[in-house]
Amino acid sequence: MARAIELAKKGHFTTSPNPRVGCVLVSYQDGVGRIIGEGYHQKAGEGHAEVNALADAKLNNTELIKGATAYVTLEPCSHFGRTPPCSKALIDAKVSHVIAAMVDPNPQVSGNGLAMLEQAGISTQSGLLEAQAKDLNVGFIHKMLHNLPYVRCKLAASLDGKTAMASGESKWITSSDARQDVQGLRAQSCAIITGADSVIFDNAKMNVRWSELGDLQADYPEETLRQPLRVVIDSQNRLTPDLDLFEYESPVLIITGDKVENSSQWPHFVKHVQLPLVSSNVEDNTTVEGIANNQVASGDVKSYIDLKALLSYLSSLGLNDVLIESGANLSGAFIEQDLVNELILYQAPKLMGGDGKNLVEMPVIKKLNQAKELTISDIRMVGRDIRITSQLTDNQ
Amino acid sequence: MARAIELAKKGHFTTSPNPRVGCVLVSYQDGVGRIIGEGYHQKAGEGHAEVNALADAKLNNTELIKGATAYVTLEPCSHFGRTPPCSKALIDAKVSHVIAAMVDPNPQVSGNGLAMLEQAGISTQSGLLEAQAKDLNVGFIHKMLHNLPYVRCKLAASLDGKTAMASGESKWITSSDARQDVQGLRAQSCAIITGADSVIFDNAKMNVRWSELGDLQADYPEETLRQPLRVVIDSQNRLTPDLDLFEYESPVLIITGDKVENSSQWPHFVKHVQLPLVSSNVEDNTTVEGIANNQVASGDVKSYIDLKALLSYLSSLGLNDVLIESGANLSGAFIEQDLVNELILYQAPKLMGGDGKNLVEMPVIKKLNQAKELTISDIRMVGRDIRITSQLTDNQ
Repeated sequence: MARAIELAKKGHFTTSPNPRVGCVLVSYQDGVGRIIGEGYHQKAGEGHAEVNALADAKLNNTELIKGATAYVTLEPCSHFGRTPPCSKALIDAKVSHVIAAMVDPNPQVSGNGLAMLEQAGISTQSGLLEAQAKDLNVGFIHKMLHNLPYVRCKLAASLDGKTAMASGESKWITSSDARQDVQGLRAQSCAIITGADSVIFDNAKMNVRWSELGDLQADYPEETLRQPLRVVIDSQNRLTPDLDLFEYESPVLIITGDKVENSSQWPHFVKHVQLPLVSSNVEDNTTVEGIANNQVASGDVKSYIDLKALLSYLSSLGLNDVLIESGANLSGAFIEQDLVNELILYQAPKLMGGDGKNLVEMPVIKKLNQAKELTISDIRMVGRDIRITSQLTDNQ
Repeated sequence: MARAIELAKKGHFTTSPNPRVGCVLVSYQDGVGRIIGEGYHQKAGEGHAEVNALADAKLNNTELIKGATAYVTLEPCSHFGRTPPCSKALIDAKVSHVIAAMVDPNPQVSGNGLAMLEQAGISTQSGLLEAQAKDLNVGFIHKMLHNLPYVRCKLAASLDGKTAMASGESKWITSSDARQDVQGLRAQSCAIITGADSVIFDNAKMNVRWSELGDLQADYPEETLRQPLRVVIDSQNRLTPDLDLFEYESPVLIITGDKVENSSQWPHFVKHVQLPLVSSNVEDNTTVEGIANNQVASGDVKSYIDLKALLSYLSSLGLNDVLIESGANLSGAFIEQDLVNELILYQAPKLMGGDGKNLVEMPVIKKLNQAKELTISDIRMVGRDIRITSQLTDNQ
């Protein structure tokens, strides 16, 4: 199973919206097991792990498949999708045992694949290295359970939680190692969410640059590079087609609150989607996108894009893992509304002082018991910076 | 030598103002070495490590001392202090070899001890496990080289660098594990520096509580507990004898800018010291102790205690390691003036939002290239919190 998980990882950047799955076929003879075929799922629409492993075994070990044991990181599917069901392929191949690391996370079909195998006389088991198997498909599982993508939020600050000087000066607070690490986060994401401000003020392209992937280049040949969908929240239609974002030819989704006119002026890979606005009674200059857009005055009633509706929409597009890379206001709004699952914080070894700009703005939080609680899952050095990975405790 | 370093650590909390030193005597016979005596320095005024090791060897192995090799974590002293020089004791005992991990850090006597041994016909070497030996005595070495104590600054905040809500609500941001860890930091410090604000608003005792030392209790029997000197900066004489700080009977040093009247009202263990004030042209409400004391108005000329003079004074008292445990303004002032060597930051796994109070105020810093650079030396979990240890890059 450990080998099957290793194989599954090869699809880390490419399988979405499908899960990462690996399969190993083992023939036991005289008490000694021997791997006779291996496979993993690489890309939606192409062969599933089980089918690829069977094909591999057929090359040299056809006669050993009958009676073999299949180790697969996820319960074999039982339904016809873009490919025929894997359970049927295993039944047809006459394997004797199927051991799955985990059952299908979709509550509506969970167990059906194993049941189909059992009905055909194949013995099944599940739960072997389950935790590791779940780690492979955090986003896929989350979407199956909640109809929402798994949301990661990347932030970077000094050790005292500042992202820029009061003057706005901020370029390259973290080191090139940390920025390279962020490229890896982008590469494993189906979409990157940002705000119009970040795009306008930083003139960011928000794409994955293969040349900056570092060690990941080995696992991730340039020709397999998949660009995440770039999602920009622009409730006031402030984006213009001359921005660097639109220089890079790869899908962009602009989320607006209004109907978009003149859509013909945009490049062909740009799509506008209008999503519902929600209103908020704003007190003391506080709100979400409001501050980001510098449009909120004290006492105003302010509308902003319904962020949960946005995530539901992205889920409906088949996106499993999304990454928020934005400023203090939009990131803070997602966190405040309990829409972030995981926070990835890069801390530069600097102290910038109290005048600097804050990491996250969450104006609704007034009391200590409203503070957002996290559970740290990983801390490590990335070059000279610290990377802290944590899960939002209220949103798991 | 590794054993000698282990022995030296036994004096971790008790040797100051002396260094932590361990010594192992080895007798080599037929190419096989055997430990014949061990010793370490426990407390100023009591036996040095070498003398203690020789005494240990005399108990059972008197005949083997002649010709033995002494491994000592610091060059044996060559001068009469409170005890006779250790080099002389080793000469008298007729050991053949002395191996020191490091030479004496005091530039004026460095090498004298080894030279005295060489003159008596004993072969010497130095540099074995030098880095580990230096780690034993960071404060002692720093004071010898700079006539200033080694200054640690302990801070605690949420992951977004906030220490309290805007309302001031802040109690127990970090967990009890982190607070226990801080007790260990206090126990290894010769003095704790804080500001009048912290003492007044938090009503803190600033003592070491043996009951909260956790795992350290094993290394640190209650009867050997030494309380660090509690140093409170009170430039405006705002402290009053009824504060909890003065409930605990252990030395307190109050640093004032003015002459103190009515000193008779204070407990016997409280001493006042007047230190020079320095002036600062204050613009836009910025300065050091100023904000802490809520007395600075825009454009004022403000005086505050000369913090470097304070550290020099503490050094003159024989204090090697001092710990700053204070608020954002006083901590920020020490950092801003490059007077902090090491920062120990506890980060609670929380996000408190931009309205919270800042970790450090450093009003002089206006540009990114003025930000204080750190070098991370250790990151680890302390309970559910993160502890980040770093050195101030410009002050090593």
